Amino acid sequence: MRTGKLRDTREPRDNREITGDESPKVRIIPLGGLEQIGMNITAIECEDSIIVVDCGLAFPTDDMLGIDLVIPDISYLENNIEKVKGFVITHGHEDHIGALPYILQKINVPVYGTKLTIGLIENKLKEHNLMKTTKRKIVRHGQTINLGCFRVEFIKINHSIVDAAALAIFSPAGVIVHTGDFKIDYTPVFGDAVDLQRFAELGKKGVLALMCDSTNAIRSGFTASERTVGRTFDAIFAEHATSRIIVATFSSNVDRVQQIINSAYKYGRKVVIEGRSMVNVIGTASELGYIKIPDGTLIDIEQMKNYTDEQTVLITTGSQGETMAALSRMASHLHRKVSIKPNDVVIFSSHPIPGNEKAVSKVINELAQQGAEVISQDTHVSGHACAEEIKLMYALLHPKFALPVHGEYRHLMANRNIAQSMGVPKERILIMSSGDVVELDKDSCRVVDHVQAGGILVDGLGVGDVGNIVLRDRQNLAQNGIIIVVLSLEKYTGQLLAGPDIVSRGFVYVRESEDLLEEANNIVDEAVQDCLRRHVSDWGKIKNEIRDSLSDFLWKRMKRSPMILPIIMEVE
Amino acid sequence: MRTGKLRDTREPRDNREITGDESPKVRIIPLGGLEQIGMNITAIECEDSIIVVDCGLAFPTDDMLGIDLVIPDISYLENNIEKVKGFVITHGHEDHIGALPYILQKINVPVYGTKLTIGLIENKLKEHNLMKTTKRKIVRHGQTINLGCFRVEFIKINHSIVDAAALAIFSPAGVIVHTGDFKIDYTPVFGDAVDLQRFAELGKKGVLALMCDSTNAIRSGFTASERTVGRTFDAIFAEHATSRIIVATFSSNVDRVQQIINSAYKYGRKVVIEGRSMVNVIGTASELGYIKIPDGTLIDIEQMKNYTDEQTVLITTGSQGETMAALSRMASHLHRKVSIKPNDVVIFSSHPIPGNEKAVSKVINELAQQGAEVISQDTHVSGHACAEEIKLMYALLHPKFALPVHGEYRHLMANRNIAQSMGVPKERILIMSSGDVVELDKDSCRVVDHVQAGGILVDGLGVGDVGNIVLRDRQNLAQNGIIIVVLSLEKYTGQLLAGPDIVSRGFVYVRESEDLLEEANNIVDEAVQDCLRRHVSDWGKIKNEIRDSLSDFLWKRMKRSPMILPIIMEVE
Repeated sequence: MRTGKLRDTREPRDNREITGDESPKVRIIPLGGLEQIGMNITAIECEDSIIVVDCGLAFPTDDMLGIDLVIPDISYLENNIEKVKGFVITHGHEDHIGALPYILQKINVPVYGTKLTIGLIENKLKEHNLMKTTKRKIVRHGQTINLGCFRVEFIKINHSIVDAAALAIFSPAGVIVHTGDFKIDYTPVFGDAVDLQRFAELGKKGVLALMCDSTNAIRSGFTASERTVGRTFDAIFAEHATSRIIVATFSSNVDRVQQIINSAYKYGRKVVIEGRSMVNVIGTASELGYIKIPDGTLIDIEQMKNYTDEQTVLITTGSQGETMAALSRMASHLHRKVSIKPNDVVIFSSHPIPGNEKAVSKVINELAQQGAEVISQDTHVSGHACAEEIKLMYALLHPKFALPVHGEYRHLMANRNIAQSMGVPKERILIMSSGDVVELDKDSCRVVDHVQAGGILVDGLGVGDVGNIVLRDRQNLAQNGIIIVVLSLEKYTGQLLAGPDIVSRGFVYVRESEDLLEEANNIVDEAVQDCLRRHVSDWGKIKNEIRDSLSDFLWKRMKRSPMILPIIMEVE
Repeated sequence: MRTGKLRDTREPRDNREITGDESPKVRIIPLGGLEQIGMNITAIECEDSIIVVDCGLAFPTDDMLGIDLVIPDISYLENNIEKVKGFVITHGHEDHIGALPYILQKINVPVYGTKLTIGLIENKLKEHNLMKTTKRKIVRHGQTINLGCFRVEFIKINHSIVDAAALAIFSPAGVIVHTGDFKIDYTPVFGDAVDLQRFAELGKKGVLALMCDSTNAIRSGFTASERTVGRTFDAIFAEHATSRIIVATFSSNVDRVQQIINSAYKYGRKVVIEGRSMVNVIGTASELGYIKIPDGTLIDIEQMKNYTDEQTVLITTGSQGETMAALSRMASHLHRKVSIKPNDVVIFSSHPIPGNEKAVSKVINELAQQGAEVISQDTHVSGHACAEEIKLMYALLHPKFALPVHGEYRHLMANRNIAQSMGVPKERILIMSSGDVVELDKDSCRVVDHVQAGGILVDGLGVGDVGNIVLRDRQNLAQNGIIIVVLSLEKYTGQLLAGPDIVSRGFVYVRESEDLLEEANNIVDEAVQDCLRRHVSDWGKIKNEIRDSLSDFLWKRMKRSPMILPIIMEVE
């Protein structure tokens, strides 16, 4: 066990009596972009202290061509670096921890989280060589840490990753409860259920504001317990006793993997774990005691050949149809060790994340074409609270103010409607935007300022060197390709020494469009000759003439507008 | 009425007695690509006759950058042009008629369809100036046309567009029934329900093969009647009596628009139709009598200002989140005449087509941000048959062979399983691939050949001038941008006269990456100097040296691989 009593020596300052008219204020500043789902990071500021709740990354949207990931713009934290006391992390999903290795290089303060959360963060720190420089502290559920003028209590909550925490943030202005991502699971697979009694106690004493997960707020009812999926697995394993079974799921869903292993053990099958992130996460979870694998159940992928189909289960990544993930490679015979074959049963223990639907369909079709049976009914439950669970939170906590978090705008609005139905007056509910500075005291909650916030694009090793202009160029290149026009001019006389030549990429099949390209060449030639006849010496003007005449011609002839890039070389 | 007795003077030849051992054969050749959903076109061939069922286009998949649409490769028809007797069209959706204007320019044969179908085709022919050259014949449900050795009967069926037809194709080898896209609607909004008795009669006499729509085959149960949506509209109109109501739906769903108009009339609202395709389709449907609009109900968008919010309903395109459609423009204040405002109620009377989920979410969020209430529950029903309806078809028709059509591979497989459960033996069910030549006679059904088929890309006015190489270039450009290296060499001496210069697009912010680009320039310079020192005169080799050294450098430094395009100019 790496936990233990935390020796945080900072003085707690939240017990001072409030005197005078001026009631203490706390500021909440979402930095990651609420619109940009995924990038969760919120600064909470009071007096000389800032704590940062979560530090997630986002995956690029369709228009961010060539971008690998998006991290939050933390200019505000950098400008107030002396105030920042630490990162408090609710759970170990990428959209809550993924930006840490980038941000810690700029803001080196301690990171607080539960054991598995810190374990997963450490995997990242190792990759980025940050283990030595980063202080990290494991916090148990029920434990409280002091950070400047804040006290932060980690409260047991359920989610699709174990060891998730909600936070009660005690500030001089009052208590702010942040649910993190959550669901209410009365019968979780690992560990305790959500600590409803603690929420009730906090509510009884008085909660200033609730920041509540909105992801599933538009869904009525109650999200089913993780355990229901285990029962489905048992049924599928029983029915398909003679097939090899392959299960694709989220690598971070440790409880899900536990349940697959339970079913496998029950039905006498060996388990193979495949896919880099699956191996990593399950390795960490197993080391830290969050998953229990009966001895002899786990086998290496190399050993699979020693067992028959009905003796094996493969747990793999690729449930979102990711091209490079193990499952896709198995389906298209690109995986070195496993190929899908008739009689295989493939279980998708997941729902497609919005935007991945077509990629998932593609993989399912490929699997079906190899003869596999694909099952995706009742094999997944969400990790987020539906309307009734959100109501329960409001009922227990009775917050004075509601600040819905996590989700698209329509989800935040749905959460707002729930808050209203639970008795929070409309004027005490605030939908925040990225960069808003929300000031809270015991009487009011309003946006008082706006600071720089949003996303920074990461492409390869470059952080922030690709922005809107580069993206616009990429979009243009993607749609229409590029035509490059090169010519050489004599330095002193301005005489044409070579060209103009035309080179294109991503525009047309050159071989089948020779006539067109020859015509285009003539157009450009004419434009250049015309400039020279008129003794135009300004290269900018010559380039414009080339661009205009060629783009006119191509639009009229083809209704296309490739990027046109004239390059003039000067020869002495 | 433009219908009437068809004067097809061709001799029917299907009444000949079959003699000898050789039983007549019919060939079915899907040309559009079953994998490529949307592009429906199937050649059916017997002796010296070919008929073509449908002639649809497909919309580009995500990897077809810059492509506007995809049309089928009809090389097979062109190679057998003297056999082709006509196009028989099941209904007026783009994926069944959209390629006609392109294909008719190569295969000018008559087009047969029901009245609305022909009306919608004529809209396209007008756009492409093909009205004069294209023969078209309106066929009524229950009517039969003779085409070479085939007789084709149009049978009443229901779908999400009115006037849809299933086809009974009488060939010397037997009867083939093609359902087209279908659902069973016992209470359609316009016209008759599906002619189940005729299907039963055909089944009783003996059906050789059934080609049955598989789109919804993985869904159990029965698709609800179109009328159920009308009841939802009434309820929404009753509940939101004080709001302006905006309904987004598919322009081709004439019955849906009829029901919105019905509710509007009932609740005393005026109706505005907005969006180009909506105006076109509803115009045609109204002209031909497929939609009934009470006098004084329809108003022009300009007249909206004369009415209060509670007096108006807007029916618009954009239900799929299309950026350029009316609804998206209203949501982002880009529409000239309508802007979304608080208190508006926006109904999505549609489901997102797979792949459009994120675009639809985006529009819903924008609408919510403008303060509109968005409703999308129970406001749509599918136009395709679920498992129980498909079973009904098999039960009525008792086909000897089953050839599932329409849908992704997994849908075709689901249809196969249904066919099997309905008593068609496994070996008599065939999942076809694009280009397969399936030969059928009374005893057998098998793939005997494979012909060229698939998609041809349309980009602007260019048809087929963009192929895999161009697309690969576009993908590469989209991901990483391009770096162009230009230099001028003296023709006879090979001496370097200018450059090498580097120009990039879509790679990095040039201003913020000056150091990097200078280093890159040095790398290229060194590579060129090295070539010149070694008297390398082969330009291909020089280009390779430039490409290799630069791409090595960029990968090491940035983990990126832009397209590198060296251009050498020769100066005399």
